[in-house]
Amino acid sequence: MNTPTSLAESVDGQRFWDDMLDQARIGALSPRGLRRLALDDNDNHARCWLVDRGRALGCETFYDAMGNVFLRREGQDPDLPPLLIGSHLDSQPSAGSYDGTLGVVAGLAVLRALHDGGIAHRRPVEVVSWTNEEGARFAPGASGSSWFAGQRQATSILEAEDDDGVRFADALADCLARLDAHGVSYRPDAFTPFAFLELHIEQGPVLESLGIPACAVQGIQGVNWYNVTLQGQANHAGTTPEHARRDAFTGAHALISALREAVAEHGDQVRFTIGKFALAPNATNTIPQQAAFSIDLRHPSAAVLAALDASFQRLAGQSWSGCTVELAASARVPPVAFDDQLVAMLDASVKAYAPDAPQLVSGAFHDAIHLAHRCPTAMLFMPCRDGISHHPDEHIERDDADIAVRALADTVGTLLAR
Amino acid sequence: MNTPTSLAESVDGQRFWDDMLDQARIGALSPRGLRRLALDDNDNHARCWLVDRGRALGCETFYDAMGNVFLRREGQDPDLPPLLIGSHLDSQPSAGSYDGTLGVVAGLAVLRALHDGGIAHRRPVEVVSWTNEEGARFAPGASGSSWFAGQRQATSILEAEDDDGVRFADALADCLARLDAHGVSYRPDAFTPFAFLELHIEQGPVLESLGIPACAVQGIQGVNWYNVTLQGQANHAGTTPEHARRDAFTGAHALISALREAVAEHGDQVRFTIGKFALAPNATNTIPQQAAFSIDLRHPSAAVLAALDASFQRLAGQSWSGCTVELAASARVPPVAFDDQLVAMLDASVKAYAPDAPQLVSGAFHDAIHLAHRCPTAMLFMPCRDGISHHPDEHIERDDADIAVRALADTVGTLLAR
Repeated sequence: MNTPTSLAESVDGQRFWDDMLDQARIGALSPRGLRRLALDDNDNHARCWLVDRGRALGCETFYDAMGNVFLRREGQDPDLPPLLIGSHLDSQPSAGSYDGTLGVVAGLAVLRALHDGGIAHRRPVEVVSWTNEEGARFAPGASGSSWFAGQRQATSILEAEDDDGVRFADALADCLARLDAHGVSYRPDAFTPFAFLELHIEQGPVLESLGIPACAVQGIQGVNWYNVTLQGQANHAGTTPEHARRDAFTGAHALISALREAVAEHGDQVRFTIGKFALAPNATNTIPQQAAFSIDLRHPSAAVLAALDASFQRLAGQSWSGCTVELAASARVPPVAFDDQLVAMLDASVKAYAPDAPQLVSGAFHDAIHLAHRCPTAMLFMPCRDGISHHPDEHIERDDADIAVRALADTVGTLLAR
Repeated sequence: MNTPTSLAESVDGQRFWDDMLDQARIGALSPRGLRRLALDDNDNHARCWLVDRGRALGCETFYDAMGNVFLRREGQDPDLPPLLIGSHLDSQPSAGSYDGTLGVVAGLAVLRALHDGGIAHRRPVEVVSWTNEEGARFAPGASGSSWFAGQRQATSILEAEDDDGVRFADALADCLARLDAHGVSYRPDAFTPFAFLELHIEQGPVLESLGIPACAVQGIQGVNWYNVTLQGQANHAGTTPEHARRDAFTGAHALISALREAVAEHGDQVRFTIGKFALAPNATNTIPQQAAFSIDLRHPSAAVLAALDASFQRLAGQSWSGCTVELAASARVPPVAFDDQLVAMLDASVKAYAPDAPQLVSGAFHDAIHLAHRCPTAMLFMPCRDGISHHPDEHIERDDADIAVRALADTVGTLLAR
């Protein structure tokens, strides 16, 4: 019998990679990428695949009221809260094969290392696949993890409809029936895990640019979304002198310059993105009556977000080129700091392979943002080529993935040895 | 018999206004405004109304190959080129009652003053209504005047189709048949007038803000239209650090700041309008891959337009936030300077009523821009409320119109006395 501390070396990299390729076939697009929308046939197929793999490793399998699937490797003390490892198997409409799947299949690789090594541990270990992380079919996303963590009520999740008018509740009922028919045990309620670990692709360019195969993640940036609307006066572009204009585009341009200046005061960790912009009536020779744009603002510090929120509100209270401004926050998600101890353990595990690994703050949301409210939580990142995700071109290097999974296993080994 | 110089005082202001109200009923919208698309039933009805009014004043009536309608008051020397006065009777889809109609009905008022006063003149006088100035049903506009002035070929005009797939040629054939049935004489060809005069609403705020009832127009601004496209790289708004971004919106914002600075070097006669703006993929949490916007640039001087064109091309040649830029001119209409002598005469006529009248440069296009290439041409403007046109709220004051028509008649009187 091996000792847990050697768990990292026991990971079967070939089987892990074969599992990734297997998963990539479920909902595959031509020539590459996949489409596995939450609770669709492919997504349900992927759940059953996971169940089968778990059973082959001697795991008991469960599903809960939200369709989250669990593979449980029993501990010597079954009453201890389990260590939870996982991510999600659903995808964006035209996605790559790694976002989410990586974290689930990595968990499976850890289970296999425990199984193949015949490693006994007091605490149960479970691998989980959370339902509808992406929110691409049913918005918003992270349905399974947010419900499990007690962050959202089931009723509000079940009411969501997809573009074809299919209710989340009905799609979920089909999924649960399929899991039931597949012999998976129903364990309806959420519980409090010992800890939650999630490996995910970075979805950004930092690790790749540094040539680092993995890193610990300190937390997830908070985000404020705003919709900004300026009302001016439509007029003839040829006949209206500058001083007589109330040009909503000119007003928006000046306001955005001021917003950028406010952002620049808070250093280079701020993410400020204007992703949507529209003019009305949107005609070449008409002065715009209205300009409307979105702001996506992110920072790891709640204090910085609050300071920028105050600056934005103050700027919106001014008149810009004679236009009135309305600035409305459409979403606010506070930043989450992961568990210090877990982050330190993951960081130590990573540095055994990559001594120069940094620690990052996640700019994207993950299931872990919700789990962090329920139990000690942390994440590992690994690089993806050109930072691309949510696209068939999403790509990871097998050598990086091998290290990332071993780092995950190493921390699991340490936790189980306690 | 009156002398021509008293023609201005002979204008029957009440009959002129009654004619304006009559015309406003043809294609009237509820509660106000009108819809008289080029060559539609209302537009043809308006032509016949004009023919009837002309006949009542002893005029011979003509139509040409483009459906332009002429009321001819014969001169003592019928071989002299006629003095031409007019504008257009077609409208935008949801328009006011003054844009175009004013200039035609004002011409009619001058004919009536000549007729009622029994004034003889060597040179013939004709009032014209040009076909499809607006271009709202068949684009581009100014079909009748541009063809008449030799600026565009009939074949290219006849090919245009409206949104229902009706060809200009077929709509025109119906119109010509109706004029024929109405007893109007066919005079197919264009000719070179002695001069062309057009009274029009300003479609801008200047005269109203000065409290001036009319003014001479020196010319028409030239206009350059551009389509500008920036190509960046779409990426995740949360995970991509500032230095790794090629944000097409950020690039567009910086480029537009530079374009504005270039414009500001050329004084306050430049009109610079960004009326269209679009981002792709246009999602709140995605860094824009592409930004596309329009520029409407106007100035009375061809040299200034050329200098700004060079500046714009130079700026587009630079990289903005790592994005590539494409700047393409989609239209160029050179400025037109009206005939100095005619402008001076109209200015003198106006100043008899409004000593402080300025001279303006038109920011909008008019049929006169084409006639200026065929014969000495000039325009008069009168104010419209809030500068609004192309809208049912378009409004003029009767007292202003009375002065504008008399100023027009005064210049006609002076020209006929020569």
